Amino acid sequence: MSKTIFTAAITGGIHTPSMSPHLPITPDQIVEDALSAYEAGAAVVHIHARDPETGRPSADLDLFGEIISRIKRHSDLVICITTGGGLGQSTEERVAAVKRFSPELASLNAGSMNFALFHVLDHLRQFKFDWERDYLAMTEDFIFPNTFKTLRQFNEFFREQQTKPEFEIYDAGMLHNLAFLIERGWVRTPVYLQFVLGILGGMQATLDNLMFLHHSAKELIQDFQWSVCAAGKHQFRMGTAALLLGGHVRVGLEDNLYLEKGRLARSSGEQVAKIIRIARELGREPATPAEAREILGLKGLDKVNF
Amino acid sequence: MSKTIFTAAITGGIHTPSMSPHLPITPDQIVEDALSAYEAGAAVVHIHARDPETGRPSADLDLFGEIISRIKRHSDLVICITTGGGLGQSTEERVAAVKRFSPELASLNAGSMNFALFHVLDHLRQFKFDWERDYLAMTEDFIFPNTFKTLRQFNEFFREQQTKPEFEIYDAGMLHNLAFLIERGWVRTPVYLQFVLGILGGMQATLDNLMFLHHSAKELIQDFQWSVCAAGKHQFRMGTAALLLGGHVRVGLEDNLYLEKGRLARSSGEQVAKIIRIARELGREPATPAEAREILGLKGLDKVNF
Amino acid sequence: MSKTIFTAAITGGIHTPSMSPHLPITPDQIVEDALSAYEAGAAVVHIHARDPETGRPSADLDLFGEIISRIKRHSDLVICITTGGGLGQSTEERVAAVKRFSPELASLNAGSMNFALFHVLDHLRQFKFDWERDYLAMTEDFIFPNTFKTLRQFNEFFREQQTKPEFEIYDAGMLHNLAFLIERGWVRTPVYLQFVLGILGGMQATLDNLMFLHHSAKELIQDFQWSVCAAGKHQFRMGTAALLLGGHVRVGLEDNLYLEKGRLARSSGEQVAKIIRIARELGREPATPAEAREILGLKGLDKVNF
Amino acid sequence: MSKTIFTAAITGGIHTPSMSPHLPITPDQIVEDALSAYEAGAAVVHIHARDPETGRPSADLDLFGEIISRIKRHSDLVICITTGGGLGQSTEERVAAVKRFSPELASLNAGSMNFALFHVLDHLRQFKFDWERDYLAMTEDFIFPNTFKTLRQFNEFFREQQTKPEFEIYDAGMLHNLAFLIERGWVRTPVYLQFVLGILGGMQATLDNLMFLHHSAKELIQDFQWSVCAAGKHQFRMGTAALLLGGHVRVGLEDNLYLEKGRLARSSGEQVAKIIRIARELGREPATPAEAREILGLKGLDKVNF
Repeated sequence: MSKTIFTAAITGGIHTPSMSPHLPITPDQIVEDALSAYEAGAAVVHIHARDPETGRPSADLDLFGEIISRIKRHSDLVICITTGGGLGQSTEERVAAVKRFSPELASLNAGSMNFALFHVLDHLRQFKFDWERDYLAMTEDFIFPNTFKTLRQFNEFFREQQTKPEFEIYDAGMLHNLAFLIERGWVRTPVYLQFVLGILGGMQATLDNLMFLHHSAKELIQDFQWSVCAAGKHQFRMGTAALLLGGHVRVGLEDNLYLEKGRLARSSGEQVAKIIRIARELGREPATPAEAREILGLKGLDKVNF
Repeated sequence: MSKTIFTAAITGGIHTPSMSPHLPITPDQIVEDALSAYEAGAAVVHIHARDPETGRPSADLDLFGEIISRIKRHSDLVICITTGGGLGQSTEERVAAVKRFSPELASLNAGSMNFALFHVLDHLRQFKFDWERDYLAMTEDFIFPNTFKTLRQFNEFFREQQTKPEFEIYDAGMLHNLAFLIERGWVRTPVYLQFVLGILGGMQATLDNLMFLHHSAKELIQDFQWSVCAAGKHQFRMGTAALLLGGHVRVGLEDNLYLEKGRLARSSGEQVAKIIRIARELGREPATPAEAREILGLKGLDKVNF
Repeated sequence: MSKTIFTAAITGGIHTPSMSPHLPITPDQIVEDALSAYEAGAAVVHIHARDPETGRPSADLDLFGEIISRIKRHSDLVICITTGGGLGQSTEERVAAVKRFSPELASLNAGSMNFALFHVLDHLRQFKFDWERDYLAMTEDFIFPNTFKTLRQFNEFFREQQTKPEFEIYDAGMLHNLAFLIERGWVRTPVYLQFVLGILGGMQATLDNLMFLHHSAKELIQDFQWSVCAAGKHQFRMGTAALLLGGHVRVGLEDNLYLEKGRLARSSGEQVAKIIRIARELGREPATPAEAREILGLKGLDKVNF
Repeated sequence: MSKTIFTAAITGGIHTPSMSPHLPITPDQIVEDALSAYEAGAAVVHIHARDPETGRPSADLDLFGEIISRIKRHSDLVICITTGGGLGQSTEERVAAVKRFSPELASLNAGSMNFALFHVLDHLRQFKFDWERDYLAMTEDFIFPNTFKTLRQFNEFFREQQTKPEFEIYDAGMLHNLAFLIERGWVRTPVYLQFVLGILGGMQATLDNLMFLHHSAKELIQDFQWSVCAAGKHQFRMGTAALLLGGHVRVGLEDNLYLEKGRLARSSGEQVAKIIRIARELGREPATPAEAREILGLKGLDKVNF
């Protein structure tokens, strides 16, 4: 059995600074958190950027460039850049980092859906920054837009850069979207799937849901590698399920701020260490970045543009 | 075991006039087709309107009013008005018919998704009307928008009118959306679900998918009635599956233009007759409109405003 | 899509004469019932014999010989002889008909299980024959014995005769038994599976169960044809499910004495006619016996010994 | 969420002495192994006896009595006595320990099946004792006999002793057997289920199978507690799956002789310690014996007869 790829999603665009003092904000913090994951055994880091002053998700390419070049200087981690973008960004803006940095791997969301965070305001009352409340509240009316045209274009951009897409799958229909893209010749197999469970608007993080998606992928896509991540408290349950099913696992502070009930994680590395402890009990070993490159068929760190 | 509700979706907004000479366009044709379904044993008709000149889907309230008042004059059918709307309509426009006509039942789409028809252009080359090609082509970039805010507002409008929502479920995550609305108190149980399978952008029409949705609904919603419809050639397979599982069934020219492989249906009534033949072989009897009202808990035909 | 094989199981060993006046008992009746199925569109008949005086299930080879040679004289039906045997028969006795008649097809039960009929005594009080009550009652303590040794030996006997086994699957574990036999080289693929649902002691006749068995077979066996039969009132529901899933269907008075709720079937042919009506509504055509031979890879009617 | 019951099955009747030097044979060894599990966090021990000279599974009541009374002297463990019996034992012999010792808990197998070990002879060539090879070889022709009559009688004996049955479920049909017993009033809910996966003759140890059994139990039994054990290398995978699904877990040398690939477990306690490490990473705490008594509704250690 091949090794397991552990990905750490460092900071994302869902959590806001008031939710945890450990959420990485500045390039320094993001790089440090990524390297904590590396030391703990992660092979891939999934990267978003934030405004260093306010912690607000940012599409600033210079910030991205600073973060990923510094990670590259200190590790051979596979770097996966987001193309999810922030609220209201255009398709062009979302894909700009792929064009400029030509990474080995970047996320690509396989369909449109409601992507809602407003319900966390039920429990969150104090904010460090002004933007946080509005940012969360406006998601009641937010759609994460990934039309078939967007998908077609993104795949063209990725292909030009030889950047492998990590297809984020939030709902069952998105697997069929992807099967359609493959059938059209717009996407080539083998593909890499990241099941993202537990977002309000998509499928929730249950074992039934994960098993169904896994079965559907075998039926519809056939030739694929897959990983799973889950929002919040289901992170380790879903990651463990992936270990049982032969999948890869993503953890990190983007998805979950806690290490266990009632205890905030101080770094993504703490979460990586925990899931790898479970993996080893189950006889699974972490892939090195080099092994992850082979499993996923990546072009190599010497072909990126940063 | 209670009776089975057969719904006929008369004309919808997916098919275009060039696809079948039997697609009902004018109010006359739509009323006639609805009554053919009634005579064949349907208890509910699902109504869209079209421009009588061009066949293009229309939100014109006068057209809706003419159609539904004429159906009411000649039958006791339950009338379910769409709120799906056409490309680019506002939330206000989509819900206007509910406000004006206060129907017993109206559709309510339980989430956002890509809703794509452009791939039929692979096989469709000749058009009666200029708008058809563009209408289909533009769906490559189309999202069917139903944010949580829209869902909250629609449910308020429906409640004001005592109009029962028929929640259209295109993907697995939409069941959780609905569970969330119920938990918030925005929607009251029992709910009525229409699984709409086979749209490009949502889940496809397979028995695995239907069974999974059915199981998920039992887990997440518990107190519900459900029906299924499927796009194209899977219409009767999915309808038959619903009969085996204790669900209700929707057929009609909105969903499928054929009666069998290679043979266009001349009316929705032909399709209703066919599925009821299958139902009777399996020991299931069609509900009358009065029985459908009781099963679904509708307010009654005397409380509509048309 | 290839055609559907309809099998009629004529009289079996489960029902007793008091349960229906239409249960075929004598060779005359069994042949007549088989031919009614043939005329209705069946391609295969599954044959048990009964004592012509008392209706008790019999292993008398002369009775078998009379029945199958007469069926062969009047039709080109594929004849599938049971090796299930009656209560208390030895392995030798059960397989004797295969050795003597060298049929194209014979049943082969893929594991041991409780096989219980005693609970029907709750509702059945009047008996035509003395043996019936005891026969049913003793099943409270009955095991249908098919050890791995028996399975190994049966497969050897079948192979000598070039008789294709129809593996009867009553429970999920039996699919793994069969996978084990294949892995050992004791059974060659492609195999033919008959899912027998609804026997007390095995899996019940639900759509969930059938889907699970179908998925398991795809996982464990891969290269197979399959059919389903179900005890009692679930006969047509399960048969219809098989039609939806691309399987073949067995009906007949062995499995179910009724045509619909409250109405006894007068012949297996009536049941065949009914399931073929449903099949045709769903666009599936019955295979002729010649087509069934091709689908199942049978040796041909010229190579039997009767 | 309530706590998790960890059961250790100490020695069973499947493994033979040549397979591991750590397999407990004598009462001393069995008691010591049980106490190692207790110290590691097990709340229940499942007890078989073996001939102290040869290691052959034994039904000798004095051996059972010595083992369980010594365990009771040194711990408050819940003791679950087997009624599975050895090859060829009568129903009376199998249930004798329940009658004599009146334990709180005893196993009760919910149906008949092939129970085969002969295939391990492919890899096992050297034997310490003469009986081992024959014991394993004869299982090619062995049925584990648990007819409905046996089930009825066993349940009567258990009820007289207020001994709670732990229903061992090896295949899907056995859940329906149990539902039938409940419907007849022969068994009272809530019941306690032990899914035993991976025995040749029953269902194999896959996540799909466990999920299906879990779903079936919810459908058929409703009111139950459940645990899982798996033969051989799947022990920890299935145990971990149970932790994810809210079930209890059985480990121990009866089921698996290894701690990890290539490393024999020195005691059942080592295995208990390992699964509890995984449990704690997933936020689940082991139940004490007292908590296990409450979860399972046991009569208490003061009401046993040893």
